[in-house]
Amino acid sequence: MNERERQVLARIERARAARPRVRDERITLAHGAGGRATADLVGAVFLEQFRNRWLEPLEDQAVFAADAGRLAFTTDSYVVRPLFFPGGDIGDLAVNGTVNDLAVSGARPLHLSAAFVLEEGFPVADLRRVAAAMARAAGAAGVTIVTGDTKVVERGKGDGCYITTSGVGVLERDVTLGAARARPGDAVLVSGPVGDHGITVMLARGDLGIEAELRSDTAPLNGLVDSLLDAVPEGVRCLRDATRGGVATVLNEIAGACGAGAEVREDAVPVRPAVRGASELLGIDPLYVACEGRLVAVVAEEHAATALAALRAHPLGADAAVIGSMTDGPSGLVLLRTAFGGTRVLDTLVGDPLPRIC
Amino acid sequence: MNERERQVLARIERARAARPRVRDERITLAHGAGGRATADLVGAVFLEQFRNRWLEPLEDQAVFAADAGRLAFTTDSYVVRPLFFPGGDIGDLAVNGTVNDLAVSGARPLHLSAAFVLEEGFPVADLRRVAAAMARAAGAAGVTIVTGDTKVVERGKGDGCYITTSGVGVLERDVTLGAARARPGDAVLVSGPVGDHGITVMLARGDLGIEAELRSDTAPLNGLVDSLLDAVPEGVRCLRDATRGGVATVLNEIAGACGAGAEVREDAVPVRPAVRGASELLGIDPLYVACEGRLVAVVAEEHAATALAALRAHPLGADAAVIGSMTDGPSGLVLLRTAFGGTRVLDTLVGDPLPRIC
Repeated sequence: MNERERQVLARIERARAARPRVRDERITLAHGAGGRATADLVGAVFLEQFRNRWLEPLEDQAVFAADAGRLAFTTDSYVVRPLFFPGGDIGDLAVNGTVNDLAVSGARPLHLSAAFVLEEGFPVADLRRVAAAMARAAGAAGVTIVTGDTKVVERGKGDGCYITTSGVGVLERDVTLGAARARPGDAVLVSGPVGDHGITVMLARGDLGIEAELRSDTAPLNGLVDSLLDAVPEGVRCLRDATRGGVATVLNEIAGACGAGAEVREDAVPVRPAVRGASELLGIDPLYVACEGRLVAVVAEEHAATALAALRAHPLGADAAVIGSMTDGPSGLVLLRTAFGGTRVLDTLVGDPLPRIC
Repeated sequence: MNERERQVLARIERARAARPRVRDERITLAHGAGGRATADLVGAVFLEQFRNRWLEPLEDQAVFAADAGRLAFTTDSYVVRPLFFPGGDIGDLAVNGTVNDLAVSGARPLHLSAAFVLEEGFPVADLRRVAAAMARAAGAAGVTIVTGDTKVVERGKGDGCYITTSGVGVLERDVTLGAARARPGDAVLVSGPVGDHGITVMLARGDLGIEAELRSDTAPLNGLVDSLLDAVPEGVRCLRDATRGGVATVLNEIAGACGAGAEVREDAVPVRPAVRGASELLGIDPLYVACEGRLVAVVAEEHAATALAALRAHPLGADAAVIGSMTDGPSGLVLLRTAFGGTRVLDTLVGDPLPRIC
């Protein structure tokens, strides 16, 4: 064995004996090259935080058993700015958002993937903090992060950290939920105050110079959905988490898909005073502001009271409310009945008043 | 009905009657806001290209049936620069790469998700071109893109288009493949010439001023894997597609995971003359250069000839070769036996000689 071979062997032995470490304080292009720096980063940050038996082999894919008849599959990219804000960070969002997109189909979320596009120079300490938040959020939601990827782009070609999570869930209940299933007369419920997340992120940027005691509502909704579907096994037509575009956009999508109208009673919509105040300053309606832990439920009218009680019995639905109903009004048209008795159209969101809030 | 309601209804009717259209020539922040512009972009570009029954409901998740005992799940982000290069583009890569990460586990790839992080100002025509390439690649691989997401970041916070694909496959064969299953004496095969993709992308940047008749090897490997596993149902220890870090890095991972050594015969490795020439100019070894349509197979020695014949019988494996073997040499050490009879260490990739080639 020559000197070079001895050196490499010694390094391999050291790597085996030691916990993997990232010596750099900042992400470099090498962390995305797929070689030794990538392996150290994956070992020291991601495997350390996410450790589970599916991830541990570090193959290019995770293999797991699932007694599936029907599976749900979803993906979302997260580009929120700033990365950290009161009540959460991009890591919470990336886990909860994908858990929620599975949950609202009635699926039990099982496993998540996490793909990172990091900007050269991003602090490794921030990445650890994000990964720790993802691990906590996954634990809280009862899912595991089983596979992933890391790419690095040059300084100025990203914005610190973008995360894409995908998720697989299994539909164990004999329910089919979907926007097309809503019909006139159905009740429209929200699971809590709207707009906390979007306004919190806007305020966290500091551009508005407003201080408010507000936190993101980011949360995993699978437990809440379970409570609801346990209580109302029939009669839930569709569930949506009210993210980008807010409750108004969700209702437009539902009305468009089912061919009914919808009407919302403005004074029935729970909105925190701080959200209402900031929204007025921003010139936007809280019904268009993203939540990351609230769902819209369309429920057959005769089950609405049971559904409301089930939501309110869960900590994440304590402030749930019936905010309106689907109508036989013009197909696709969503109307807001104002506190003064007038109506105005709640159209689909046009433009982007709140960029990069998720 | 008032004037505003009539206007909105007329718009809804027009939207229903017409095919969705994107009027803008360039991506704006509104395309990522989740409102009307997003819906138009999804309808006119992604649904138009990817159309299938799982995607069509445009819910936040796709629901599909799978007779699964074991599932494979994978994700990768693609940040290649330039987006278009001889032989492919970021769209091909994003589909083939995820198909291949499923295929090398022995799974049949079923469904993909696609999440886009677009930079404000990105040409819509380029996005159409990328989506069309993804649709073609998905068709060729026999998979469907069933769910997705689009985010837009401000100019200067991205680089045109980043794509993250995830994939779900089903393990129908009774095989378990994995790096830890390799053992001394096993043959190491590659399915074709190495390094075409990485060198093609480097040359496409034009920085080197070299012209060469070279194309990316991007291709879906699930058919090739099927042929191999049909011919050698037992005796294939593990498969890896040789992407970032190239064949050398794959072999280091395998040797590290199984506790054997590995030896590669330099003159047995198929390398195109143009790849060899450019690699010499770049000062890198083709064994570290990424392929996007080549696999490394570790096969029990007694099945090596059958495996080689099976690979060569497939168009994507016509130039397959046995390039070396796993050894009882020091655990984790990969050696290259040079054409002159000497040996040198093929260590894990250090640094990033070829940033953003996938």
